[in-house]
Amino acid sequence: MSLKNLINEINKKQSFLCIGLDTDINKIPSFLLENDDPIFSFNRSIIDKTHKYCIAYKLNTAFYESNGASGWVSMNKTIDYIKQNYPRIFTIADAKRGDIGNTSKMYAEAFFRKMNFDSITINPYMGADSVKPFLEFENKFSILLGLTSNIGAEDLQLKTTDNDYIFSEMINSSKSWGDSSNMMYVVGATKADYIKKIRNIIPNHFLLIPGVGAQGGNLDEICKFALNASVGIIINSSRSIIYASNDNLFADSAAREAIKLQSQMKEILSSRN
Amino acid sequence: MSLKNLINEINKKQSFLCIGLDTDINKIPSFLLENDDPIFSFNRSIIDKTHKYCIAYKLNTAFYESNGASGWVSMNKTIDYIKQNYPRIFTIADAKRGDIGNTSKMYAEAFFRKMNFDSITINPYMGADSVKPFLEFENKFSILLGLTSNIGAEDLQLKTTDNDYIFSEMINSSKSWGDSSNMMYVVGATKADYIKKIRNIIPNHFLLIPGVGAQGGNLDEICKFALNASVGIIINSSRSIIYASNDNLFADSAAREAIKLQSQMKEILSSRN
Repeated sequence: MSLKNLINEINKKQSFLCIGLDTDINKIPSFLLENDDPIFSFNRSIIDKTHKYCIAYKLNTAFYESNGASGWVSMNKTIDYIKQNYPRIFTIADAKRGDIGNTSKMYAEAFFRKMNFDSITINPYMGADSVKPFLEFENKFSILLGLTSNIGAEDLQLKTTDNDYIFSEMINSSKSWGDSSNMMYVVGATKADYIKKIRNIIPNHFLLIPGVGAQGGNLDEICKFALNASVGIIINSSRSIIYASNDNLFADSAAREAIKLQSQMKEILSSRN
Repeated sequence: MSLKNLINEINKKQSFLCIGLDTDINKIPSFLLENDDPIFSFNRSIIDKTHKYCIAYKLNTAFYESNGASGWVSMNKTIDYIKQNYPRIFTIADAKRGDIGNTSKMYAEAFFRKMNFDSITINPYMGADSVKPFLEFENKFSILLGLTSNIGAEDLQLKTTDNDYIFSEMINSSKSWGDSSNMMYVVGATKADYIKKIRNIIPNHFLLIPGVGAQGGNLDEICKFALNASVGIIINSSRSIIYASNDNLFADSAAREAIKLQSQMKEILSSRN
């Protein structure tokens, strides 16, 4: 998907919500377990009921891999279902991959060509040549870890070099590997103080911000510093939407939670015009 | 596998060779493509002919994922084949995973329980809580990226903080997350100058050293600085072994290359006693 189409969809839907399909076989309603592929059945229902309110779905690969090869089948079916039925929705493989060049190329082939994701999250610890193979695919996005929201961010990302925080140095050196048409950054929502700093370094890039909802970030606070002229943010919420209830109406409950967030987003977007 | 059993196997075989099964459907002998699962057929032949000379096999997950769900089936079959036929061989999922706690736990389940790998490579950029879920499995190893051999190491790992290189800081802060019975480090072979430095920080941990062979590291040079009283290193070679020839005798050619490296290792181990 092109950057232009993503921005169009955001404006049309008045939403910058991404729903995280962190689908855990132990957390889905038990009646789904009778289906051939309970994970896919769950995802399909969630997608059908929520697609009007979000502009992206993010699949966390760990949740699929924990079911082995059959988990990969569920992931494939889910991405195909989105692409066939809701082709304007942006898709994110939350895979946090990254390796030496010839290996990253294989990952890019897997996620961009074999599975047709629009984007993939990437761990930039191995540097430019670990990211560049992903950037060679047109209308695909590499979403680099900028600053993560977990406590472990302090162990490395928040240490300082002679000049700056390590995460800052990383964003500064990586921003020229591509541009805002093929790169985005993951920025932890609970670190709103740092978003301003990051916006100074990369005013134009989209930021993927996880952690609203179950992880406790505040939407208004984040938007205050993160929004740019093209909106420029995608806010992810996973558990608080997809596990809103555990009964026959789980997908309707998810839609209700998605609408709540989308309404707040609409209000935020209106108030700035 | 326990650390003790790994060390026993190294001493018995007089080898610290790991063979990297970076199996690429485009590089294997074409007559194998007639088989149901060419990737597994290739791996099985390589394993049967080389298992006497190596103490570990490393499966690079990217090469399997590039074939989608069927690639995961090939990976499963390969790990099962090794475990059933050569249970004393150490197995490494070269997956470079790492995410927030509940996600890392899913990856650990996938690779340690669902697939029964003995170890997995981990990208430590997200800090302690991204690694700890892997450390909770007994007799399993987390192999953290220490310093990688690619040019991109300069973009982040080789920058300096107030105290030291970033990679050094990372090894220093991470070494206490576990100990040498459940953690190892990846150290790029082409950076022999740095190995001495790393050995000062972690004298007892095993180092997984890729890059001997196709990537051009020098075995004697590495051993001079990296060996410790328990040997303490696993040297990986992938392409120069598994693609030694492309004919009917590809597995014998691979064995010949493995023997060459194992002989050098035997000599190095003998000369220090």
